[in-house]
Amino acid sequence: MSKEFDVLVIGGGPGGYVAAIRAAQLGFKTACCESNPYADPKGEPRLGGTCLNVGCIPSKALLHTSHMFEEAGHAFPDQGITVGTPKIDVAKMLARKNGIVDQLTGGIKGLFKKNKVTLLNGHGSFVAQAANGWEVKVGDETVVAKQVIIATGSKARHLPNIPVDNKIVCDNIGALDINAVPKKLAVIGAGVIGLEMGSVWRRLGAEVTVLEAMPEFLALADKDVAKETLKIFTKQGLNINLGVSIGDVKVTKKGVSIVYTDKSGAEQKLDADRLIVSVGRVPNTDGLNAEAVGLKLNERGMIDVDGHCRTNLPGVWAVGDVVRGPMLAHKAMEEGVMVAEVMAGQAGHCDFNTVPWVIYTSPEIAWVGKTEQQLKDEGVDYRAGKIPFAFNGRAMGMAAPEGFVKMLADAKTDRILGVHIVGANASEMIAEAVVAMEFAGSSEDLARICHAHPTMSEVVHEAGLAVLKRPLHA
Amino acid sequence: MSKEFDVLVIGGGPGGYVAAIRAAQLGFKTACCESNPYADPKGEPRLGGTCLNVGCIPSKALLHTSHMFEEAGHAFPDQGITVGTPKIDVAKMLARKNGIVDQLTGGIKGLFKKNKVTLLNGHGSFVAQAANGWEVKVGDETVVAKQVIIATGSKARHLPNIPVDNKIVCDNIGALDINAVPKKLAVIGAGVIGLEMGSVWRRLGAEVTVLEAMPEFLALADKDVAKETLKIFTKQGLNINLGVSIGDVKVTKKGVSIVYTDKSGAEQKLDADRLIVSVGRVPNTDGLNAEAVGLKLNERGMIDVDGHCRTNLPGVWAVGDVVRGPMLAHKAMEEGVMVAEVMAGQAGHCDFNTVPWVIYTSPEIAWVGKTEQQLKDEGVDYRAGKIPFAFNGRAMGMAAPEGFVKMLADAKTDRILGVHIVGANASEMIAEAVVAMEFAGSSEDLARICHAHPTMSEVVHEAGLAVLKRPLHA
Repeated sequence: MSKEFDVLVIGGGPGGYVAAIRAAQLGFKTACCESNPYADPKGEPRLGGTCLNVGCIPSKALLHTSHMFEEAGHAFPDQGITVGTPKIDVAKMLARKNGIVDQLTGGIKGLFKKNKVTLLNGHGSFVAQAANGWEVKVGDETVVAKQVIIATGSKARHLPNIPVDNKIVCDNIGALDINAVPKKLAVIGAGVIGLEMGSVWRRLGAEVTVLEAMPEFLALADKDVAKETLKIFTKQGLNINLGVSIGDVKVTKKGVSIVYTDKSGAEQKLDADRLIVSVGRVPNTDGLNAEAVGLKLNERGMIDVDGHCRTNLPGVWAVGDVVRGPMLAHKAMEEGVMVAEVMAGQAGHCDFNTVPWVIYTSPEIAWVGKTEQQLKDEGVDYRAGKIPFAFNGRAMGMAAPEGFVKMLADAKTDRILGVHIVGANASEMIAEAVVAMEFAGSSEDLARICHAHPTMSEVVHEAGLAVLKRPLHA
Repeated sequence: MSKEFDVLVIGGGPGGYVAAIRAAQLGFKTACCESNPYADPKGEPRLGGTCLNVGCIPSKALLHTSHMFEEAGHAFPDQGITVGTPKIDVAKMLARKNGIVDQLTGGIKGLFKKNKVTLLNGHGSFVAQAANGWEVKVGDETVVAKQVIIATGSKARHLPNIPVDNKIVCDNIGALDINAVPKKLAVIGAGVIGLEMGSVWRRLGAEVTVLEAMPEFLALADKDVAKETLKIFTKQGLNINLGVSIGDVKVTKKGVSIVYTDKSGAEQKLDADRLIVSVGRVPNTDGLNAEAVGLKLNERGMIDVDGHCRTNLPGVWAVGDVVRGPMLAHKAMEEGVMVAEVMAGQAGHCDFNTVPWVIYTSPEIAWVGKTEQQLKDEGVDYRAGKIPFAFNGRAMGMAAPEGFVKMLADAKTDRILGVHIVGANASEMIAEAVVAMEFAGSSEDLARICHAHPTMSEVVHEAGLAVLKRPLHA
């Protein structure tokens, strides 16, 4: 007889494992299936998905190490700290990174036990609608679940004619396991992953060339953010080429050879030891057997859902990268919680307007809400306040005076519409902006709320004052 | 004829210079007098007060350098970064620190010009009430101001029989200019300054002994914070002795010799190269000539004020360290803004319940609102949620897994009553807690607001969930 569950979650990434834990907390008999073995020596399914295994978490470990390496090489002398020329032991750096991943992925298994979530080993694939829910094949067995949450995530988009071997030509997976500092590294795609991984290897000594098809840098970000960070990254030594068109890419004896047309239309050739392809991600809907049950996908291969993550099938939900909206782990987690709560009859809700974005370069980039160009396009009457970190005592103390905080607020109501931060610790500073926006706060609210001195967050406070045209420190 | 102003601010520290700028912005003809020459080579008054010249800002510069020094010596090997044994050039470290102070203090002069605040050179001292305000002597001249804001700050409390020369025996001023790493450093007082400066010199190689009269460590902080940080600082090598009674202190040929009684009642002798005395601060009311005009001080020498910083004299206000409340720069600044706005007929207001505290040790300590022991004493029915950073991906990536977030909320309404953070970047993370509390937010609010992944702020989110007894990641 088939195993029966109230809820089956397909996929154990951030959206899936959180949905499973929350569903179990709410009293549902819950299972979560995962087939992803990544680097597990025993071939067991590893929870945490792309984010934990080959994304956010391991990249942050490498970003920290490479940032410290760069500090030692460049920021120490001014401060009176003398060290010899820093050397990097890449194997050791990767081992630390892997240790963190192992500990955290094991931790989620522990959370499953604690919350009584059954972990099933195998990919979930729809068989048919059952009298009491859905029949889903997981590995060799078939389970029946009253409700199913699809959280199968996404995988790197690959380009035609550029086969990824994750040795010479890498996507996000291989980029995290490059076993020696390449002399020359090419990166196709100047998005989050391209900039983060390009930064890691540049700091460690690689000559990094980034090729981006779009004519604009970081088109998704506020234009002031894009302008400032392009300047900073270029000064750091990232060779960023916009508006290129990629031609032939060949793996050679020595590495990889990339032919491309630059923005002036001239053909260029770039030889590199390694290539990272980071041109976006595609939802993982293969293998779900969606057709068999009539699960509706959109033209981009994503599962169609409503604001509460309901698919077109009764009792089938989908969350995270496999549905509309930004492919961000925290957005997936929020959706996972929402679905579990809605299933339990609660008023689950996700506010997609206050999902923060972070890019963990140095300086970090973080924002929430609308960009200035979006407000212009929408014809919103807004006011802007922008304050640099250059004169912030904490930033100066940390030898991190780059960047700014830019706040956008409704011209009439003063309600905050967007906050854009370039600076050290932007990832942590954005939290107060998210909280203020969730409370429908105004720029005057942040301008009047006490901020600890000396902190970089004071610049958020000051940006609020700047919206009101009465900065105290600028 | 005397110079006449609408507003005279006595003292150009954080409370004073901010009050002056805001008053000028609101249309008052404003002057600010300051006599503090600190280390200015030309003997000109330096704005920014204790905080900028010999407090918060220079200490943060030294804390950053010494933190990087410690990272190089202790955290690099695990990450695969090899550097030789780090060496510190104290003179260079101090020069960078001084450069930051110079730049910022000069910056405030620029802000005065921009906002049309007249800077007067000299200490302000009341002469008499005038027909149209107050006569105040500033240096050699007498000015008349309709309203006066006293912002004279505080100075280090010294102990009887321990003369401070700021060479061998230092208060906050000398502690920032110690010109070589002492082999042995003694610190009397385990408060903010003692812990921060003790940490700086310990990281750079000093053997540091801290002597504290109170039997409890960090009595002001939440008891969990105090317990955790005492453990951490002790493990780092700070030798912290509580419940001691200081006896004879003698400057010797070799340094300084301190006799004290330990908590068991045994007499001990400590020889050190340097001694830092950090046993609190006293308000600067000498020299104001308070008696001449009948300005009322309290029994602790502070100026008596109401919630809007009004003194007993009409048109005379006082803000910052010289009045009740915590001696914190940001509290002083908030008061400065409030007074200027109230003078202008606006509804100035300070919420003293949401003034954050920060101690910039490593890990950092930050809190806002009530401690658990305060809630117990007040008989408040509360719930607590406490989540460690140990399993936070960002903290692990940064090799900074120490500490926790503890949230306290009203048991009935769930309104947040206090948030206590021990951890890297606690200083920036506390901002979202302050914002949430200003909006009278609940622990459920922070538990439901999207937090970027991976960030340390996620632990604030999780602490909110823990108050609700449904953590997702613990």
